[in-house]
Amino acid sequence: MAGNTIGQLFRVTTFGESHGIALGCIIDGCPPGLSLTEKDMQHDLDRRRPGTSKYTTQRREADEVKILSGVFEGQTTGTSIGLLIENTDQRSKDYSNIQDLFRPGHADYTYHQKYGVRDYRGGGRSSARETAMRVAAGAVAKKYLKQIHGIEVRAYLSQMGAVKIDKVDWEQIEQNAFFCPDADKVDAFDELIRKLKKEGDSIGAKLTVVASNVPVGLGEPVFDRLDADVAHSLMSINAVKGVEIGDGFEVIEQRGSQHRDEMTLDGFKTNHAGGILGGISSGQNIVAHIALKPTSSITVPGETITSKGESAEVITKGRHDPCVGIRAVPIAEAMLAITLMDHLLRHRGQNADVVTTTPKI
Amino acid sequence: MAGNTIGQLFRVTTFGESHGIALGCIIDGCPPGLSLTEKDMQHDLDRRRPGTSKYTTQRREADEVKILSGVFEGQTTGTSIGLLIENTDQRSKDYSNIQDLFRPGHADYTYHQKYGVRDYRGGGRSSARETAMRVAAGAVAKKYLKQIHGIEVRAYLSQMGAVKIDKVDWEQIEQNAFFCPDADKVDAFDELIRKLKKEGDSIGAKLTVVASNVPVGLGEPVFDRLDADVAHSLMSINAVKGVEIGDGFEVIEQRGSQHRDEMTLDGFKTNHAGGILGGISSGQNIVAHIALKPTSSITVPGETITSKGESAEVITKGRHDPCVGIRAVPIAEAMLAITLMDHLLRHRGQNADVVTTTPKI
Amino acid sequence: MAGNTIGQLFRVTTFGESHGIALGCIIDGCPPGLSLTEKDMQHDLDRRRPGTSKYTTQRREADEVKILSGVFEGQTTGTSIGLLIENTDQRSKDYSNIQDLFRPGHADYTYHQKYGVRDYRGGGRSSARETAMRVAAGAVAKKYLKQIHGIEVRAYLSQMGAVKIDKVDWEQIEQNAFFCPDADKVDAFDELIRKLKKEGDSIGAKLTVVASNVPVGLGEPVFDRLDADVAHSLMSINAVKGVEIGDGFEVIEQRGSQHRDEMTLDGFKTNHAGGILGGISSGQNIVAHIALKPTSSITVPGETITSKGESAEVITKGRHDPCVGIRAVPIAEAMLAITLMDHLLRHRGQNADVVTTTPKI
Amino acid sequence: MAGNTIGQLFRVTTFGESHGIALGCIIDGCPPGLSLTEKDMQHDLDRRRPGTSKYTTQRREADEVKILSGVFEGQTTGTSIGLLIENTDQRSKDYSNIQDLFRPGHADYTYHQKYGVRDYRGGGRSSARETAMRVAAGAVAKKYLKQIHGIEVRAYLSQMGAVKIDKVDWEQIEQNAFFCPDADKVDAFDELIRKLKKEGDSIGAKLTVVASNVPVGLGEPVFDRLDADVAHSLMSINAVKGVEIGDGFEVIEQRGSQHRDEMTLDGFKTNHAGGILGGISSGQNIVAHIALKPTSSITVPGETITSKGESAEVITKGRHDPCVGIRAVPIAEAMLAITLMDHLLRHRGQNADVVTTTPKI
Repeated sequence: MAGNTIGQLFRVTTFGESHGIALGCIIDGCPPGLSLTEKDMQHDLDRRRPGTSKYTTQRREADEVKILSGVFEGQTTGTSIGLLIENTDQRSKDYSNIQDLFRPGHADYTYHQKYGVRDYRGGGRSSARETAMRVAAGAVAKKYLKQIHGIEVRAYLSQMGAVKIDKVDWEQIEQNAFFCPDADKVDAFDELIRKLKKEGDSIGAKLTVVASNVPVGLGEPVFDRLDADVAHSLMSINAVKGVEIGDGFEVIEQRGSQHRDEMTLDGFKTNHAGGILGGISSGQNIVAHIALKPTSSITVPGETITSKGESAEVITKGRHDPCVGIRAVPIAEAMLAITLMDHLLRHRGQNADVVTTTPKI
Repeated sequence: MAGNTIGQLFRVTTFGESHGIALGCIIDGCPPGLSLTEKDMQHDLDRRRPGTSKYTTQRREADEVKILSGVFEGQTTGTSIGLLIENTDQRSKDYSNIQDLFRPGHADYTYHQKYGVRDYRGGGRSSARETAMRVAAGAVAKKYLKQIHGIEVRAYLSQMGAVKIDKVDWEQIEQNAFFCPDADKVDAFDELIRKLKKEGDSIGAKLTVVASNVPVGLGEPVFDRLDADVAHSLMSINAVKGVEIGDGFEVIEQRGSQHRDEMTLDGFKTNHAGGILGGISSGQNIVAHIALKPTSSITVPGETITSKGESAEVITKGRHDPCVGIRAVPIAEAMLAITLMDHLLRHRGQNADVVTTTPKI
Repeated sequence: MAGNTIGQLFRVTTFGESHGIALGCIIDGCPPGLSLTEKDMQHDLDRRRPGTSKYTTQRREADEVKILSGVFEGQTTGTSIGLLIENTDQRSKDYSNIQDLFRPGHADYTYHQKYGVRDYRGGGRSSARETAMRVAAGAVAKKYLKQIHGIEVRAYLSQMGAVKIDKVDWEQIEQNAFFCPDADKVDAFDELIRKLKKEGDSIGAKLTVVASNVPVGLGEPVFDRLDADVAHSLMSINAVKGVEIGDGFEVIEQRGSQHRDEMTLDGFKTNHAGGILGGISSGQNIVAHIALKPTSSITVPGETITSKGESAEVITKGRHDPCVGIRAVPIAEAMLAITLMDHLLRHRGQNADVVTTTPKI
Repeated sequence: MAGNTIGQLFRVTTFGESHGIALGCIIDGCPPGLSLTEKDMQHDLDRRRPGTSKYTTQRREADEVKILSGVFEGQTTGTSIGLLIENTDQRSKDYSNIQDLFRPGHADYTYHQKYGVRDYRGGGRSSARETAMRVAAGAVAKKYLKQIHGIEVRAYLSQMGAVKIDKVDWEQIEQNAFFCPDADKVDAFDELIRKLKKEGDSIGAKLTVVASNVPVGLGEPVFDRLDADVAHSLMSINAVKGVEIGDGFEVIEQRGSQHRDEMTLDGFKTNHAGGILGGISSGQNIVAHIALKPTSSITVPGETITSKGESAEVITKGRHDPCVGIRAVPIAEAMLAITLMDHLLRHRGQNADVVTTTPKI
């Protein structure tokens, strides 16, 4: 209830600050019998890891995850899985200059007022470094979903600043440092990032997350609709300011005759709904889009105040991404996977007895 | 966990189908000592109620709510509050024609596949009629927030189809049937609705919800951020396909130097963030936008299938809104109020000891 | 979280005061496809109902339960089930004499101090009248457990005051007003009750609850062990002051060589454990005992204080049971059934994939 | 929901197996501003630690806890606290002899059937080694309760086998290896343990846990009564088979005139209720008793079966306590402290507005 847990049956609880000793999480409720090693998580951790490309922060973290429990002889046992990543590059530098400073666009001011104290080193708990554990836990969900149910969860960068992709070639996504599915836009992204670096500024981004081969029936009426829970889990990612399911905000100008996805015996004719009807998966691809704000960690000077009630100017030096949206791709995948996994377990908990002869389309 | 509950400390659990005997809800965790009568809820219920204007469905429901428990001598007692609304206009008409039909854009197919059985009368549990109880519960939250903490939660229609409002005059909202804050757009909305009625079609809408006078500090890191929980509660409203906090999807093209809300001793200079930083309320107005899809209950014929695996044509006759977004205004207010109320109680549960001398801006 | 809900996947939330308009509950998470009518609940409600025998309170309540939602054409639909029982015999008598009085052994003082206000009529929310809804919800669980899984949950009175039963004849339990499985003790119980009535006093009781045909595997390590959750649900019944699983407090003087239930290929040789090992059901009968205190609603004068800070004498007149333990028999069954049902759904949520070739004994 | 979490606002989630790499836990919801170091936990960990006395198992574990997050400059920050204890004495011995063996009285059979796989080394997750993290988390709760609210939680051994204590001298408890408050019984306990060691057998025990200076008002009607949640948390301790609140099972033979705790302006005259009325703390001492079964890890040969469906004989060699109840003293304190802490936060979450002029007695 204090917010560091997500999920009901597949539950992930995390801890750890940006410049603390370690990050960790506990996965509770993972089905037993799943083969699992650190390698299964390391791939996605590496995709999210800082310092892997010139486009992202140069902080060097190995992000090596260790499984501390819940796996025996290479298989999950059904008991709680403890995961740990040690922080190796905290750089115990002097933080006295930002100790009292409320950086605009950051959580400094709100954490300070909420708790009275805060770990000001690198944002403490509010740092996006926390998302490493989401990616680790998400990798477990992704493996289970893929291996046992054939469900695949993938994401890509669909827009950065004014540059939008024009096509989706799944093969391209891992071929460039932007998780960009349109090879023709890679240069434009590259150019934009260079420009921003030079100017010491940052830019927002749009990501698209897709889950394919999802069975019909996941999601609970009326508050825990699948789309509501997906909105929750995606909006919980640092910097996300908007979530769309399917056509999202485009529906405002659509007609009902245009939006409804007509059905034939061969399947749905369209997927404006993004794979969710009445809060329950329809069997079509789950499609979501998220908007990530430009980071406020920039060198353009800004006005702010201190915890002592003084005016101040802020410049955030250090190792920061001009576009935090890029590295959010594996995070978005992780969050969607965790939510689908949770709903899959919840669905069969209640409905394992159901037998229906109606054909699924 | 089965989805009919929202909130942790201020918990709302609902039941009821469109054409069942009654709708009801239990509010658990309401602070004691709040003066409360049915009238406090009836105003918002009437705002949501069908049949109150020519622009909305003509189903006639009194929507008279009864308090069954939890209130004694006009005051909440701190124990669970039972609320009931009897369905009076179910019109026990013949539903055999849609019994086997999966209406496109509706939850018919997904409920059927999930549960094996479904109450097909008027959508059963998936009907927006369910939202009446949200409004009733939300009215309790709104009263507490306003009376004890001075927090106000209001919403309005900001777009319908291609027609957007140009200004927000709070006084106007209750002066027209569209909850439109821009008097100059009322005629355009009216015209659009008439056109749609004639064509038997429907249209999407955009709503804006604003909470003012919210204290700094509400929201929990890292998964139960206030924005994540607001996204969840707003996305759980029928027909919502997108949620934005603050600038929402506009952030994609913003620069960090532009988006970050700089702070001065007189307060924040802007509110691009929508009143939430790091998942915690900043003391600025909470601002959210939602996109509602056009209803699929239209008379334009559409293609679909039946539970027996046959092709079929569907035309939805009956008493339906051409724009379901209009009546969603009080619902959106209710959901935001419930979420804020919950977080207010959660915040003080953990942090009641906190004393900070840092000035709030 | 505010306490009026029990269960995770099979969730029961209740409302209602002793002298309010109605009692109600919402069952969320019931599997779909279960045939269910009011009759299925009425039998247990009648067993718990006041006024049915000369041994229990003479308050006359029909306790007629109405299903308001979640059941369609005689079958559960998987959506939330709303239940309602109207209070018909509130007797709007004058309560001004106890309005300010804190009756010893009751919740008057604690509710008053916790909430600042309380519904003093008949104990309000703290009255055992609240348990009617537990019995109704428990009947749904009992039906599902029996019909789909063959699990049976039954209870009996095993001791009242110093009178203990010597044998358990399941056929006898419904043959007498005490739910006593030992026909030879019925007269002694009858005599004890008569004596207490004459003296205006009350007595404690011990109940035994047994679930048979429970599959191996229900219960979650480490905090939500089946025994821990059973202890929770049984201790939540009014007047319960102790819970034992299996041999309970007798284990203090047992040797390990005596207590451990040895296993053979024909099954366990004994059942000291009460059917739970390591918090997980073993496939043996689940056996629990509970101790219920003597009610404080007696006519023997007692010393107390008022909410105004004055000394006072209290005598509780009215329609009260000399032994509240008797009517608790169906309540205990209901609580055990609700807990087993919840764990059954939770177990299959996580472990539906498990295939083991090891024989179950 | 998968069982490795306890509490709602003060939440403790644990992981770790007996012979795994490490044990850990996450405390979520701890109020900020509490001074906290490893030392605050180490004292209780040492009290629970194996190998500290000749009466308990000789496994040597340093049980050194490390704080990984949530504490900054010696103070809790309000964010999740990560704790870790590395297993140092796993003794990677050969477990092939018990790999297929279901030890009677243990969780081997039930875990195997539930999950299909299990970590058989030393009981894996079902080992009481898991309780180290409960003690660590409990120490945080104990410190907060004591320092901020003056609440003290203490426990002692009240019976082992047939030997019962006759008096409670709080000063004595830490003066002997049995946590025995009656100096005159220490020799009898010592003799009993020696005898059992010689015979290779074990014995049960009874513990008493007391919380003093608890404010009136903690606990939630109707399912999350304080006594119900205490029963849950105490019954979740390994080997516990019974829980009593106040007079517990003695109430069966009590009269109402005897049991009800009469009230005067100077306070309650007695405390039969154990400090809880109607599920809510009364301001008196909270008193609970628990019964712990004799461990089945004994050298007396016993009959059992294997996972292959064969008969077998079992003798448990190794480093085991003849009376596991002794070391459960700090565990029982921890569990009661966690539950009180949770309810204290929950209470003020809902009821922080309450002002009552009625004097507390």
